[in-house]
Amino acid sequence: MTTYKSLEKQFKKLSNYEHLAAICGWDQAAMMPDGGNDARAHAMSELAVLCHETLTAPEMGQWITEAEANIASLSAEQQISLKEMKRVWQQATVLPSDLVEAKSIAGSKCEHEWRTQRKENDWDNFAVNLKEVVKLAREEAAIRAEQTGLSRYNAMLDLYEPGMTTEKLDVIFGDLKSWLPELTQQIIEKQSTVAVEDPAGPFPTEQQAELGKKLMGILGFDFNHGRLDVSMHPFCGGVPQDVRITTRYNEDDFTQAIMGVIHETGHARYEQGLPPSLHGSPAGEARSMGIHESQSLFFEMQLARSPEFVQHIAEFAKDTFGRESDKAFEVANINALYKRVQPGYIRVDADEVTYPAHVILRYEIERDLIEGVIEVDDIPGIWNQKMQEYLGISTEGNFTDGCMQDIHWTDGSFGYFPSYTLGAMYAAQFMAAMRKTVDVDACIQALDFAPISAWLEANVWSKGSTLTTDELVIQATGKALNPEYFKQHLIERYLNN
Amino acid sequence: MTTYKSLEKQFKKLSNYEHLAAICGWDQAAMMPDGGNDARAHAMSELAVLCHETLTAPEMGQWITEAEANIASLSAEQQISLKEMKRVWQQATVLPSDLVEAKSIAGSKCEHEWRTQRKENDWDNFAVNLKEVVKLAREEAAIRAEQTGLSRYNAMLDLYEPGMTTEKLDVIFGDLKSWLPELTQQIIEKQSTVAVEDPAGPFPTEQQAELGKKLMGILGFDFNHGRLDVSMHPFCGGVPQDVRITTRYNEDDFTQAIMGVIHETGHARYEQGLPPSLHGSPAGEARSMGIHESQSLFFEMQLARSPEFVQHIAEFAKDTFGRESDKAFEVANINALYKRVQPGYIRVDADEVTYPAHVILRYEIERDLIEGVIEVDDIPGIWNQKMQEYLGISTEGNFTDGCMQDIHWTDGSFGYFPSYTLGAMYAAQFMAAMRKTVDVDACIQALDFAPISAWLEANVWSKGSTLTTDELVIQATGKALNPEYFKQHLIERYLNN
Repeated sequence: MTTYKSLEKQFKKLSNYEHLAAICGWDQAAMMPDGGNDARAHAMSELAVLCHETLTAPEMGQWITEAEANIASLSAEQQISLKEMKRVWQQATVLPSDLVEAKSIAGSKCEHEWRTQRKENDWDNFAVNLKEVVKLAREEAAIRAEQTGLSRYNAMLDLYEPGMTTEKLDVIFGDLKSWLPELTQQIIEKQSTVAVEDPAGPFPTEQQAELGKKLMGILGFDFNHGRLDVSMHPFCGGVPQDVRITTRYNEDDFTQAIMGVIHETGHARYEQGLPPSLHGSPAGEARSMGIHESQSLFFEMQLARSPEFVQHIAEFAKDTFGRESDKAFEVANINALYKRVQPGYIRVDADEVTYPAHVILRYEIERDLIEGVIEVDDIPGIWNQKMQEYLGISTEGNFTDGCMQDIHWTDGSFGYFPSYTLGAMYAAQFMAAMRKTVDVDACIQALDFAPISAWLEANVWSKGSTLTTDELVIQATGKALNPEYFKQHLIERYLNN
Repeated sequence: MTTYKSLEKQFKKLSNYEHLAAICGWDQAAMMPDGGNDARAHAMSELAVLCHETLTAPEMGQWITEAEANIASLSAEQQISLKEMKRVWQQATVLPSDLVEAKSIAGSKCEHEWRTQRKENDWDNFAVNLKEVVKLAREEAAIRAEQTGLSRYNAMLDLYEPGMTTEKLDVIFGDLKSWLPELTQQIIEKQSTVAVEDPAGPFPTEQQAELGKKLMGILGFDFNHGRLDVSMHPFCGGVPQDVRITTRYNEDDFTQAIMGVIHETGHARYEQGLPPSLHGSPAGEARSMGIHESQSLFFEMQLARSPEFVQHIAEFAKDTFGRESDKAFEVANINALYKRVQPGYIRVDADEVTYPAHVILRYEIERDLIEGVIEVDDIPGIWNQKMQEYLGISTEGNFTDGCMQDIHWTDGSFGYFPSYTLGAMYAAQFMAAMRKTVDVDACIQALDFAPISAWLEANVWSKGSTLTTDELVIQATGKALNPEYFKQHLIERYLNN
């Protein structure tokens, strides 16, 4: 067996183990009774150790070196695969095991206590734990920086969004910051005269699920390779051949669950559309967190919140819940409801227009934190100042709804936040490019998503990780990421209509 | 670390891997969409290899030898654990890997083609595959016999029912054969004047599930450590901390699913009641297939088909399906329905009275087949002759409903069948012993299962595999297995009432 074949075999083994982790993780969130949690945690942790051992097996370094030495004997696709294998392997092997363990312990403690501390607005005690997490994250960043030649924060960013850097982000986010606050104000003023009525429940869970599945089917979700279930925190899990998405139902409000299902359907179609010939190989995986989010936001923001699609939602919902004569179900009202813009404290509740402010704020803080420019004690003050600057809201003394609202930093996932807004911008840019060859509005009106899927499959899904993010975006749209498309999308949807 | 601790750790690791296999196996049967099957099969097979490697790791033999040499330093419980560890390890290591692989290939082929061949009544082609399976099973039996000092068939029996031998079975089953055919005739004659009416459906699945869960709750199933779902072939899976049982609903007949749920609840309570201090160790597992079946049959046959319990079922069912004035729901009719005795071709459809004949017939054939007394070509003739002798039914030329009806032999699971009838006899013997200290009928009438559970927990569940089957039965009932209790149970239920 060539060393390349040995690598392929080892990654296939890893992928089989990760399959088990994905299904058991889904089960834990969607099916498992509470009493099963301790035993499950042990089994999952044993599996995590096994996955790490498989990826960092002693022979791997040698195999990679030898495969690289014989790279001329590999096909173009194999050469790309080898590059991705090496990237994944390097990321896994570079940290000394005592740092991995210290990170895991500090992260678990910080996250666990945060669940209570957040409710109690207890910044002081949270800060004690967070300082330990940040200290270890800086050690991690320093090691990753040395390995990659990137700056410390860039080395962290590279884990989630390979190829992205603060240099690029500062330009892109700087652009957003230059026009978004004013645009937001204009939209809010324009909407101030629009009356919106919330449909009155109850909306039985079964009927919401039925409507959700109907929309998933229309949007091309392959139920032969996936399912929809319920969990506390919605997610997209499973494996490409069997994608498990979840949602959460509120019997007083069907609009959130429905849009949540569509969002996860975007993630799911990306997974279902990854290239089968590369299943089980790093090159066959989703490109990055930002590209993944671009697909969920393409489905949610670009397709489903368009007036053409909202009209279908309003009609289906009327049917499903038997509200033919309910004024709250009129298209104009449902449309206004799905377009409502309002600055708020909480990122996960934010609309499409104010969301980037939440992300940019976090990006600027975590970047400076990892680079050592600011310290944990500085966070609440900067948070408050930036919230006032970007959204006109004060979080003075309100840690619960301020800098303690997210889980990401508690376990050291610094570098993740930018993916959300990168995804929104990629989605807008993909849509602009797609419109050159696909009559998107007509497709939506006719509920014919085949041409839209075909474009996404050809340009995004089938690429897996065989292109860099930049290559993928340029090949698909003709240009590198440009926030202008997102700006035009917001102006078109929220000011011109 | 002592070598005993190393063994404990290794078995704990194995148990964690088996946890993942149990949950993913359950998912495959109860949740997975069809399109996920290929990827799942690969992942499960990778995990099976891993489990085998974990159990047969090169250090294990040395650890066991050293732990045995220092046995005086172990507690009584540890000494028992060590014995069980060794037993499990020996069974796993004794077969050469080329035989394991040949068995797996021959078994897969035979089982796969059997699914079509059975439908087509195609014995000739099935026999070709079965001969290969039997050839390999005889090789396996010979190796196991040499290792254990048992006869060939006994060595196979030992995999499912440790300690059981043909010498004991021939006595026990010989006893059954001496009175069961005549008793069956008497019962059929007695029932010939009883008119039974099948309740007329439809019985919606949701209502059947609701009734099933209600009965599970009454029978002490712990929903914090388990769930009920649907699968094509009902089973009890998962892990002791999270037991997954399944059933199958027929909207025309609620009586089967309900009794199926109660049967699996018996398996589930055994698993849920295994000793927590021994979770993850071979000594903490269920004792044998026969004892497992004794618990499902205790719940189904001893408890749930008693007239006292059937009265509750009739009343709950009336409520659930809104059939207050339906004559088919009267207690006498439901009781007659659940007591109906009728010889038939199919083992899995057989009633409590005729079931042992199906098992004894299979036992006698597989024993002689493994010992080399008969050949595959002899099976149809012997099957037909014994069916006529034991049940008065001819299977001449009917292989589909004769010797091709079961899956067990297709993959070489020779030695499994006796467990079913051993379970029925253990259950009757447990009930007779329980009645000495528990007023079982009063408990059932009052739907107070705590005293019954307490007895089973103390005498069966909490023992795990710390006793041999003989020790367990003798400690629980004062006697070794004796078919007399089963006989008395049948006479009492079917002739005296």
